[in-house]
Amino acid sequence: MANEEVILLDFWASMYGMRVRIALAEKGVPYEYRDEDLKNKSQLLLESNPIHKKIPVLIHNGNPICESSIIVEYIDQVWNHTAPLFPSDAYGKARARFWANFIDNKIYQIGRNLYTTKGEEHEASRKDFLECLKLLQHELGDKPYFGGESFGYLDVSFIPFYSWFQAYETYGNFNFEHDCPKLIAWAKRCIQNKPSVSTTLPDLPKVFAFVQHLRKKFGIDEE
Amino acid sequence: MANEEVILLDFWASMYGMRVRIALAEKGVPYEYRDEDLKNKSQLLLESNPIHKKIPVLIHNGNPICESSIIVEYIDQVWNHTAPLFPSDAYGKARARFWANFIDNKIYQIGRNLYTTKGEEHEASRKDFLECLKLLQHELGDKPYFGGESFGYLDVSFIPFYSWFQAYETYGNFNFEHDCPKLIAWAKRCIQNKPSVSTTLPDLPKVFAFVQHLRKKFGIDEE
Repeated sequence: MANEEVILLDFWASMYGMRVRIALAEKGVPYEYRDEDLKNKSQLLLESNPIHKKIPVLIHNGNPICESSIIVEYIDQVWNHTAPLFPSDAYGKARARFWANFIDNKIYQIGRNLYTTKGEEHEASRKDFLECLKLLQHELGDKPYFGGESFGYLDVSFIPFYSWFQAYETYGNFNFEHDCPKLIAWAKRCIQNKPSVSTTLPDLPKVFAFVQHLRKKFGIDEE
Repeated sequence: MANEEVILLDFWASMYGMRVRIALAEKGVPYEYRDEDLKNKSQLLLESNPIHKKIPVLIHNGNPICESSIIVEYIDQVWNHTAPLFPSDAYGKARARFWANFIDNKIYQIGRNLYTTKGEEHEASRKDFLECLKLLQHELGDKPYFGGESFGYLDVSFIPFYSWFQAYETYGNFNFEHDCPKLIAWAKRCIQNKPSVSTTLPDLPKVFAFVQHLRKKFGIDEE
């Protein structure tokens, strides 16, 4: 794997981008990180992802790969000499993919509503969000990781959300430690045991300040 | 693979269900088909997919697998002795997955708008739909199949939509033969060359009658 060119187009606070950074770190792949200005996207980003024009994009030896879940699977297949992210059995793999889709389709959108809405819509999102977290906590069960004894695809897919938890907690008026203790223990376990996670996740107060900025942008809070 | 129990919970007009039926046919897997009454879902469906409560669900030796794209990948992994649906290279695989996501997130929703909306929203959907089809036609290029020389994952993901084309054409006021000739030639090629497709796709007039019924239900056409 010498002479590999690996470039990641990303944005520091992106939970989707963090997935890719964690997967690359798990595999020990050196890469060039380029933080995009999302208000003024680079020509390379626009050309590499002409359909969606979104980060993250991994460019491997000139081939652009888009969408975090697809990128993480790509990384797992290409750098398959270490740290497999999927179990070898097809059912375990399907199950991890199912819950990763659940995170993409539910947690992200409902989480966003927590800091962009008010009133009834906000209250409905609060309930939905907690219900989703409880479903994920149930899927985790008593295992150390979603992947079982080892950190896997679903762990990679979900742990970046933890960096936004302070914002979710504040604007959703939650106490996750009380409501989802096993999930919080899992997140802390990931940070403590996996350098790929601890070196990737940004500081929670930095993310919180970013969300405060977003709320002003959306007109939820005054400038 | 003797003594396999394979049950498919499905609905005849579902494009997502057709994907699974085509993949099972490609692999030559015998299975029990159960058509669900979507207004009165079976206890088995509700128990097998408690999160989304949606078809299709494949139940393989008691293990339920949900979501068509995940099921098709599962089938490809479990019955890997014949008709591989993915290319062996990771980039080709990532690319097929990218376009399958595009179909799921764009074509399905915009196509639905064609027969459930009127006025400006309908006109915007018409433009979007055609643009999406042209992007897919561009991805196909001059290859016989999206998978290249052989019928693959993206072909499986997209060909069921052809069974709804008469409805899209009528309610979207399109002439696909004129606007996307290569795509139509591809669809006819799939039907002609792949028994898995020709035996799975329902008759177009039957699907069209079903969409007429949906329009009445949505109050777009009078009873």
